[in-house]
Amino acid sequence: MIVLFTDFGLEGPYTGQVLAVLQQAAPEIATIPLFADAPARQPKPSAYLLAAYAQWFPEGTVFLCVVDPGVGGDRRPVVAEADGKLFVGPDNGLFDIVLRRSSDAKLWEIAWRPPSLSASFHGRDLFAPVAARLARGDPLTELAHRTNERSADRNWPDDFGEIVYIDHYGNALTGLRGSQVPATARLVAGGHSIPPAAIFSAVLPGEAFWYVNSNGLAEIAVNGGSASTVLGIEIGGKVTIEN
Amino acid sequence: MIVLFTDFGLEGPYTGQVLAVLQQAAPEIATIPLFADAPARQPKPSAYLLAAYAQWFPEGTVFLCVVDPGVGGDRRPVVAEADGKLFVGPDNGLFDIVLRRSSDAKLWEIAWRPPSLSASFHGRDLFAPVAARLARGDPLTELAHRTNERSADRNWPDDFGEIVYIDHYGNALTGLRGSQVPATARLVAGGHSIPPAAIFSAVLPGEAFWYVNSNGLAEIAVNGGSASTVLGIEIGGKVTIEN
Amino acid sequence: MIVLFTDFGLEGPYTGQVLAVLQQAAPEIATIPLFADAPARQPKPSAYLLAAYAQWFPEGTVFLCVVDPGVGGDRRPVVAEADGKLFVGPDNGLFDIVLRRSSDAKLWEIAWRPPSLSASFHGRDLFAPVAARLARGDPLTELAHRTNERSADRNWPDDFGEIVYIDHYGNALTGLRGSQVPATARLVAGGHSIPPAAIFSAVLPGEAFWYVNSNGLAEIAVNGGSASTVLGIEIGGKVTIEN
Repeated sequence: MIVLFTDFGLEGPYTGQVLAVLQQAAPEIATIPLFADAPARQPKPSAYLLAAYAQWFPEGTVFLCVVDPGVGGDRRPVVAEADGKLFVGPDNGLFDIVLRRSSDAKLWEIAWRPPSLSASFHGRDLFAPVAARLARGDPLTELAHRTNERSADRNWPDDFGEIVYIDHYGNALTGLRGSQVPATARLVAGGHSIPPAAIFSAVLPGEAFWYVNSNGLAEIAVNGGSASTVLGIEIGGKVTIEN
Repeated sequence: MIVLFTDFGLEGPYTGQVLAVLQQAAPEIATIPLFADAPARQPKPSAYLLAAYAQWFPEGTVFLCVVDPGVGGDRRPVVAEADGKLFVGPDNGLFDIVLRRSSDAKLWEIAWRPPSLSASFHGRDLFAPVAARLARGDPLTELAHRTNERSADRNWPDDFGEIVYIDHYGNALTGLRGSQVPATARLVAGGHSIPPAAIFSAVLPGEAFWYVNSNGLAEIAVNGGSASTVLGIEIGGKVTIEN
Repeated sequence: MIVLFTDFGLEGPYTGQVLAVLQQAAPEIATIPLFADAPARQPKPSAYLLAAYAQWFPEGTVFLCVVDPGVGGDRRPVVAEADGKLFVGPDNGLFDIVLRRSSDAKLWEIAWRPPSLSASFHGRDLFAPVAARLARGDPLTELAHRTNERSADRNWPDDFGEIVYIDHYGNALTGLRGSQVPATARLVAGGHSIPPAAIFSAVLPGEAFWYVNSNGLAEIAVNGGSASTVLGIEIGGKVTIEN
């Protein structure tokens, strides 16, 4: 299975062109668009989102990950290998959290280049063909070479006290793993102090609460409404734990 | 064929995770995302939308339907069987109109439970695996038991005089079947009295009209513009028939 | 491969119904949603967008193209044949630029009609079944007859000095091919004079530039931001070349 994690949007031309490349190079492999609206041009919140959601997929999954504001510059194209899953994309921190949480992590720099490489769409021209070949079983050593260096020391924290995603309902996903927040603690975001609750119907309509979502992240929601609108919170908003 | 009818959005993580479950459990079955933006958290307008669109699909289709504000609470997981089609989802009224318009309707309560069930994402953990098994031909009796009771007497009308959906063009779909509105009647919505017309080009650019859409619903549109913006109407707005 | 180019949106019911038709009529053919948000009801900007993106696909591709404000009126349903690719849709100018740029162009009028044809959704009822049959290899002569006439003399220019699309990042695609703009020229849009640059990181964060995008169009972008928001430009905004 190839899983797409990008900031491309689904409706415009980018996801479609990537799907066309995958379809031609690996027609027998299923492709799943997981996120097409990861935080645009922001590898840091995207890294925490990816780590939380990648965990849920089985070993052998190939993730094609493109949040790539430095495309065409000198950031390296890489494959991160973590607990039997492969992550193809730019070396800009996007895979830092996945690698850190993995018990068996390796980094590979992609050496393969396509016959024609645009300056602005490596997702289509470079990363998609590599993901297709890996999903078909081509060995990593044919496409990339091992590297132990990271391009930068980013010093990102283990858990990230910011909103990393607003979903279709207006729920606000944080970069904090629920397991790292005391079950009775309140979260503070957008100037509001928010209590925990187990499920939506445990609070009154219109009231805010936080809970551990189905992928393990602490998530801020409002029963019957949009937490983003009601609390005035957006991607990048700070979230602190109030014990 | 498995048809998705949800309020998940396509771009975020929910549809993708459901597609991943279906892909693993029923790789040979095609999945069609019909609605990913059914009225969020609103089973009532969603029920009229679902009934109008489900009608168009052939017998044997399995619908995976998740508009589920009560997830994790005590609403029952069910399968509605209606005229040879199966609808998997929560027992919150979402299937009431489909069942009422069917000549052969049965309700089943899902007894099967997955090894691991999140509190907030039964679409992924419970409904998708059930839909996959039904689409593959597993008998309903292995997953569910017959029930004749509805969880509540909701007293919803046969046709619903509200806007139930605003489409990508800004057209406003009502919960009224076109066949139940006199062909020469006007519809009143947002303080406007709207005449009927057969097609868009039958009225002047910028003018509003209503017509029977390709799935049988009375729909309010503006030639060359957005009815939602021009008329100031949204999901939940009242629609009355002016004879 | 069948490629979808429409103004339907992905989340609502239109793309899903078209996919269901294609799935039933040509289950073995892959379908790629390229654009579901082509300029709504605007064949002219859509025509330049389609020509730029269709070029990238291989011979044999069938494009199902629906930007069709005149649906149900007297515009003809056609198939445009251009350099070994087939384009199915309305004869409203949508294929003019593709045909003009092709060295081997033919126009066919669709004679086939479905048993049941709605007045408002020819994408589902007429164009999708035709696209499916063509993709499966049915000869054009069974479905359509040659025509050399265009329905109108639209006199559209070879390159179009307007914004034709705003993407998910807020980048503004113009109807100008990059090859037709001097490499050192500035573009003027929204009252701003915009210099060229090769890649995003060649300009300071927050600064605007134009570049030739990966499909050959001159595109206006802002490093780290939305050109649409920063420059106040939308689809339909004029773009001129300042030498």
